[in-house]
Amino acid sequence: MVEAKNLTHLFSDEANVRQPSPLKTAFKYYKDPNIVFLGGGLPLADYFPWNKITAESPAAPFARGIGAVPETAEETVVTEILKVQEHNERKDEVSLARSLQYGFTEGHPELLDFLKTHTKLIHKIPYDDWDIIQTTGNTQAWDSILRTFVNKGETILVEEFTFSSALETANGLGVNHFPIPMDDFGIVPEKLAEILANWVGPKPKLLYTVPTGQNPTGSSLSAERRKAIYKLAQEHDFIIIEDEPYYFLQMEKYTDDVSARGEQKVGSHQEFIESLVTSFLTLDVDGRVIRLDSFSKVLAPGARFGWYVAQKSILERLTRLHEVSVQTASGFTTSIVNGLLNRWGQDGYIDWLIGLRSEYTHKRDVAIDAVKKYFPLDVAHYNPPVAGMFFTVQFDASKHPEFATKYESDPLKVENALYEQGLAQGSLLIPGSWFKAGGNSNPPNKVEVVPGTENLIFFRGTYAAVPLDELTEGLKRFGAGAYKEYGLEQAI
Amino acid sequence: MVEAKNLTHLFSDEANVRQPSPLKTAFKYYKDPNIVFLGGGLPLADYFPWNKITAESPAAPFARGIGAVPETAEETVVTEILKVQEHNERKDEVSLARSLQYGFTEGHPELLDFLKTHTKLIHKIPYDDWDIIQTTGNTQAWDSILRTFVNKGETILVEEFTFSSALETANGLGVNHFPIPMDDFGIVPEKLAEILANWVGPKPKLLYTVPTGQNPTGSSLSAERRKAIYKLAQEHDFIIIEDEPYYFLQMEKYTDDVSARGEQKVGSHQEFIESLVTSFLTLDVDGRVIRLDSFSKVLAPGARFGWYVAQKSILERLTRLHEVSVQTASGFTTSIVNGLLNRWGQDGYIDWLIGLRSEYTHKRDVAIDAVKKYFPLDVAHYNPPVAGMFFTVQFDASKHPEFATKYESDPLKVENALYEQGLAQGSLLIPGSWFKAGGNSNPPNKVEVVPGTENLIFFRGTYAAVPLDELTEGLKRFGAGAYKEYGLEQAI
Repeated sequence: MVEAKNLTHLFSDEANVRQPSPLKTAFKYYKDPNIVFLGGGLPLADYFPWNKITAESPAAPFARGIGAVPETAEETVVTEILKVQEHNERKDEVSLARSLQYGFTEGHPELLDFLKTHTKLIHKIPYDDWDIIQTTGNTQAWDSILRTFVNKGETILVEEFTFSSALETANGLGVNHFPIPMDDFGIVPEKLAEILANWVGPKPKLLYTVPTGQNPTGSSLSAERRKAIYKLAQEHDFIIIEDEPYYFLQMEKYTDDVSARGEQKVGSHQEFIESLVTSFLTLDVDGRVIRLDSFSKVLAPGARFGWYVAQKSILERLTRLHEVSVQTASGFTTSIVNGLLNRWGQDGYIDWLIGLRSEYTHKRDVAIDAVKKYFPLDVAHYNPPVAGMFFTVQFDASKHPEFATKYESDPLKVENALYEQGLAQGSLLIPGSWFKAGGNSNPPNKVEVVPGTENLIFFRGTYAAVPLDELTEGLKRFGAGAYKEYGLEQAI
Repeated sequence: MVEAKNLTHLFSDEANVRQPSPLKTAFKYYKDPNIVFLGGGLPLADYFPWNKITAESPAAPFARGIGAVPETAEETVVTEILKVQEHNERKDEVSLARSLQYGFTEGHPELLDFLKTHTKLIHKIPYDDWDIIQTTGNTQAWDSILRTFVNKGETILVEEFTFSSALETANGLGVNHFPIPMDDFGIVPEKLAEILANWVGPKPKLLYTVPTGQNPTGSSLSAERRKAIYKLAQEHDFIIIEDEPYYFLQMEKYTDDVSARGEQKVGSHQEFIESLVTSFLTLDVDGRVIRLDSFSKVLAPGARFGWYVAQKSILERLTRLHEVSVQTASGFTTSIVNGLLNRWGQDGYIDWLIGLRSEYTHKRDVAIDAVKKYFPLDVAHYNPPVAGMFFTVQFDASKHPEFATKYESDPLKVENALYEQGLAQGSLLIPGSWFKAGGNSNPPNKVEVVPGTENLIFFRGTYAAVPLDELTEGLKRFGAGAYKEYGLEQAI
């Protein structure tokens, strides 16, 4: 048994003060056949006004693609969940009488079992006492993580450009942040090492990262970078929060050669699993990684279902917090998602994820093809993403003919002009500066700008949300705006 | 237009610091037909693996009772929700493509509309700029309320005996509390007035109360007491959080006369509505009440769906917090609950609530009948609840023959002996002291014990969770234990 390191010294005041409910001591008698239990305020399931729920979904292996509407019974899988489970029913089902009742803050065992098996399939976690508990999505999970580790006024590490909502979660809690420089491939470990070596004040307890298909940059950390970052976490005793909603939107590599596309298609489940980048979890000999996983990008955001993977002592504190805040995920979500996953099975779920990979690869290709075709590549730089929903196009603001004059050598003014020009042409991409983590560490640590990057600006686009023809049209329009703004002639 | 008072001076540091996401400014172009919007990281609904969800529920008016399993098509209402709504479909439906997508932190308009109409039917709110936003249940709502109003180290007012989980939510946040004395009928307004008049330190910003069918005491505040408490809220400028999960578990009055039971059955919807106790919301001329409503006790806890009713400026701050924490309720919950409610209609929902009233009245009657029959009423006192899931039986510890000797005049020792004796007899009720709010206001305010109540202890039972025969058996056993513990002879 390889045990995780004890990291309880990193808990926040809030986490340390939390007590389990005194009523828990009574609940050990809840199912005791010798005791009539009049202790719990649970409504009878007889009064839940749902007797049966049926859900129709595509059946594995999704031969016509995951987006195809099932046309035959063979292509359809029907999940039927009853209020009260019959004796002869599947063992892996969560009946409505159970899912719609109170309880199960950690999650229902049937769904947790599925997720644990799945986790073992994907990540080789090097220590034994890890576990999984459910969340209501990574946004809630991140809020709960902050409350469990960071006191007001303390500082966390974040990526230089990061998901603004995640930063706002921290800001609201009075948590300060410090940005780590990134390049096309995410966090630069050498920069992180330098920052930590020169750190002033108490060391940060957390690094928040979206390592795969990062939002907003679309970058993905290589296994080598992850190893280097993990080593720094060990040296400087911090916890890595890997927020991984896009992990299964890893794609085939982009190639200019259209005829060669599809050659990286995975042939088997094993090939698919091996194609996935090494997670921080897989490197986690200490138990200092908390992985935030979610169905939002692989099944549906509205499921509001995610899960932490972490060492048990950390999950215990998170459970205490969930008990007095979000309690648990929706029972409808639990019954329906669990019903579908167990009908698909582990293999069917992998088929689904392979289907996603194929869809996103194609969308990404269409987007990058359009950027190549329609953008002024003398001043613009693209970096085809290998994962996620986002791509970025970088511009050199200093190459704008009016940079020093009209825009007073301020790259943000060029950024805004490009944004407005895009809108005027009928296309919207998000300016990269909107995701910029300013940094307000306490006491102040110096934020260094990597020389040569001062005048680089970028825009975030997505290929996820729109049909392919619109995607191409939108990029054509934005490209035309960029040509116009830079005073360049468009060849086409 | 009657406007709510501006109460923004009561916001916490956390609420004051929250910013809306900068991406919101871009989202105004989201549905603009002239703009190709490449700004949002939303997955396509094509990839949501649910094409249709069907739910079977009892149909109004529930002639055979709300717990009866529908046997005919007439007794069944079928909610069928498609991924993409057809043009000819009902206007009040939330399709899966919408409910399972991101967005709608406030809630989907279709369901909010239903709830607003319902709220107007039940509460006459005296000011105009109130609104409703969804929560994921009252536990989450309470956590968000605390974060929005109370800074660490500040003090809130709570009922002397209160829902321990609600207290633990506050404790974790470093929020102190001060208990308000209660009697059989809830908070004693005169005591509250006295406490506030003599208050040392900054006045509390919040009073947390479960006014109807209180947990744990089962007490309900009369309209008169609510008026007096509301007046104090105005005088001392605090906000009333009315946590009302049990509001629709209001019952007919208990009567010893079995033949007279059922005479208070409501004959019409209007009669039902008039039978409900005046809510704090109905008295709220200032907009200083935040009502926490929930489906947990009227439909199912696992729906994880509730809502705030409050003035808009308060809901705006709560929305900012929800955006970076819970985000939104489950889309499955939204589509399914909304589908059912709109098929039932407002009238059908009232039928359901009337059905609940009837079920709970009967359960309560069975419980109180058993207490009367099996408990040593020389030392025990019961107070039939008029609402909720809970009843209490009070004991005078000083009447225990060994109070001064074996139990060293400590009422809690008698309480524990009764609890253990109950368990030995095969029945569990929860000791009242487990719900006792100790009080840790900062700076300290003196907690007074009402003279004559020092030696009173009580147990909380529920009639909600068990079938009627078990309920009677459990109370018979506990009563026998009490007779034994007090050394009294049982007549039966």
